[in-house]
Amino acid sequence: MPITANDPHRKSWLQVAENSDFPIQNIPFGVFITKEDVVTIGTRIGDFAIDMGALQQLGYFEGIDLTDDMFMQDTLNDFIGDGKKTWRLVRNRLADIFDADNAALRDNKTHRDVVVFNISDVEMQLPVHIGDYTDFYSSKEHATNVGKMFRDPENALLPNWLHIPVGYHGRSSTIVPSGIPVHRPMGQTLPNGETQPVFGPSRLVDFELETAFITTDANIMGENIPVNEAEDYIFGMVLLNDWSARDIQKWEYVPLGPFLAKNFASSISPWIVTLDALEPFRTASPKQEPEPLPYLQQRGNHAYDINLEVSITPENAEETLVSKSNLKYMYWTMSQQLAHHTINGCRINSGDMMGSGTISGPTEDSFGSMLELTWGGQKPIQMKDGSERKFINDGDTVIMRGFCQNNEVRIGFGEVSSKLLPPIPTKF
Amino acid sequence: MPITANDPHRKSWLQVAENSDFPIQNIPFGVFITKEDVVTIGTRIGDFAIDMGALQQLGYFEGIDLTDDMFMQDTLNDFIGDGKKTWRLVRNRLADIFDADNAALRDNKTHRDVVVFNISDVEMQLPVHIGDYTDFYSSKEHATNVGKMFRDPENALLPNWLHIPVGYHGRSSTIVPSGIPVHRPMGQTLPNGETQPVFGPSRLVDFELETAFITTDANIMGENIPVNEAEDYIFGMVLLNDWSARDIQKWEYVPLGPFLAKNFASSISPWIVTLDALEPFRTASPKQEPEPLPYLQQRGNHAYDINLEVSITPENAEETLVSKSNLKYMYWTMSQQLAHHTINGCRINSGDMMGSGTISGPTEDSFGSMLELTWGGQKPIQMKDGSERKFINDGDTVIMRGFCQNNEVRIGFGEVSSKLLPPIPTKF
Repeated sequence: MPITANDPHRKSWLQVAENSDFPIQNIPFGVFITKEDVVTIGTRIGDFAIDMGALQQLGYFEGIDLTDDMFMQDTLNDFIGDGKKTWRLVRNRLADIFDADNAALRDNKTHRDVVVFNISDVEMQLPVHIGDYTDFYSSKEHATNVGKMFRDPENALLPNWLHIPVGYHGRSSTIVPSGIPVHRPMGQTLPNGETQPVFGPSRLVDFELETAFITTDANIMGENIPVNEAEDYIFGMVLLNDWSARDIQKWEYVPLGPFLAKNFASSISPWIVTLDALEPFRTASPKQEPEPLPYLQQRGNHAYDINLEVSITPENAEETLVSKSNLKYMYWTMSQQLAHHTINGCRINSGDMMGSGTISGPTEDSFGSMLELTWGGQKPIQMKDGSERKFINDGDTVIMRGFCQNNEVRIGFGEVSSKLLPPIPTKF
Repeated sequence: MPITANDPHRKSWLQVAENSDFPIQNIPFGVFITKEDVVTIGTRIGDFAIDMGALQQLGYFEGIDLTDDMFMQDTLNDFIGDGKKTWRLVRNRLADIFDADNAALRDNKTHRDVVVFNISDVEMQLPVHIGDYTDFYSSKEHATNVGKMFRDPENALLPNWLHIPVGYHGRSSTIVPSGIPVHRPMGQTLPNGETQPVFGPSRLVDFELETAFITTDANIMGENIPVNEAEDYIFGMVLLNDWSARDIQKWEYVPLGPFLAKNFASSISPWIVTLDALEPFRTASPKQEPEPLPYLQQRGNHAYDINLEVSITPENAEETLVSKSNLKYMYWTMSQQLAHHTINGCRINSGDMMGSGTISGPTEDSFGSMLELTWGGQKPIQMKDGSERKFINDGDTVIMRGFCQNNEVRIGFGEVSSKLLPPIPTKF
């Protein structure tokens, strides 16, 4: 089925600013609450939020096989569970409804009043109920930087890294949408040179610049997903700030991996941009040397050229850009991650989320964490207000943005923005 | 509120065998499907399954503040979310309904016919929707055994182990109830002495003898749960077989911890035994030296004296007991695990599951995994049918049982039993 929604020449009857992340070619999916306290599934065009529950009630999805309340829900899980054919039909239909030449909704003010909202009048929610959250570690630059700092500069990459898209399980209960503030975590750390741990607020709170993909039901327990089919089970992508407490991580992570250093919060952008919308931005991945095992070998281009930026806005001060990276630098692709995740028969459900791992590029200004940008605090970053940052301060807002751009169209993610607050005092 | 359900002198009008795990003093909670395909929440007395949905419809829970369909659900999450006071009221009421001296249901055949089923006529389900699954590593004997085998025999325990109830995130999508078979996982391993990994079925599939506890909603994001209040947020416990593939684990686990070695399957017993029912079996934990940090220091007895056994039944052969252990050996308690898990503000939801980690006792016949029992395969175990086991063979059924016993009462868990099947062929 052709992805007619991607037609770069289509214009919408809704006004869209030149540099918008959300032209009619994007049509992402999300969940929002209106001023009337109605929760609905919706999409976004320009600065307008579209109530898809209302559209469905008004018959605009007629002819597409959907349950009656498909979009009158507080998560996208059921819709995602319907599979790729349905996603594409719905996205194509939305492009058609909002096409400049389609008068049906455009000229029906009564309908428009219950369907189209100003984006500032709705409150974005977590778009899916995330059953399981997995985080990968797929940037060679990031793994090398971390290996140089914490292990052996001469053998920075561990022996398994070039063979396995290394990943681990994260915590889904603390994934929050953009806008929700995050508290600095308390915890155990081992001060340098000491043998006894101490308790207190983490002193090294960091962001990790990541993207994440959302899956549909993909297999029964025991079955694998072949690498060359894996993209069929990926609904779309979001931006992910995988908050990290470096001092807690250092003391706790051997041998079972990061735990409290990560599970206090992970923030995501609220609009899921579909893999279909990202189709024009496919590109080649870095060459994999040595060649991976056959179950990880894939044909064609499976990386995506997505520009990524991180800024920090100190309390009552101006925003400072601290990193510019790109998803295309990643050594392992999403397809390889999903194929690896299921090669042992691990079941994948609708709404599961898988993070890319910190996305660091080849240059020092493209690293995806303060740990790397300041090289463990040795090279502080200058903020526009004159202050310096080694890690994130209380009151700082960390903002990540992402977009794809070619000669014809810009497809963006909007942003994931979250403020770091001081810890809530510990109860004893 | 007194736990009247624990009265050791109470008898039920339902017949209960002498050595049953489920006397009227137990009253565990589970979810089952009847022969008529009705899904309901229920309890068990002796070999009878009790339909609590039917009991509620017939008015037997009158006076307890419950939503109308509290027990007509396919998970216990909402009930668990109601909190400890409600759990206790319902359990006390059930003890009262089935008390030998209470004629209300006993003498009402019409009611009995829709409430009481033979246990063999129902099919047990997963009792909760598990949002997040965490697995700890809290047996000093197990951590020491693993450290001796894989790291340094002289420094088997890692520096953080005596300070932190070490844990990591598991995968909730592959947690299955007793009776569901499990497929041997395929995966990458590094053969001894080689530098290039190979692909194939895991050759070292193992069980891990564990218990797990199920939580209620405990905190908002950012808040901790004090160690001395933690038990109020624990609904009850199950037996857990945390299936493990040792060869996959060895190659993948540095630096982010076990992933595909664990997430192909975890099996649990279907009846959740409440912490209230286990109250008579509280006991002291091993002395903690050095003293943990203040947020982990607790008063009183918080370990539980639960006898545990593991058997292996080869295909068409007799069962062989391979291990006898006890939960009381654990160095870190459930309260300490939950206090640690939330010290950074990690949110805990109703239905989250937390595994103890492999429960190994001090003697060689009390180790909780084949890895330890056969010391990495060096000392195979003799089966009753004459065969030997280093790890688990295709066709083997692994059975774990657990029970508490004093002079007055026996409170048991039943069993978690699961058969290992050959791998499903990999699709390329």
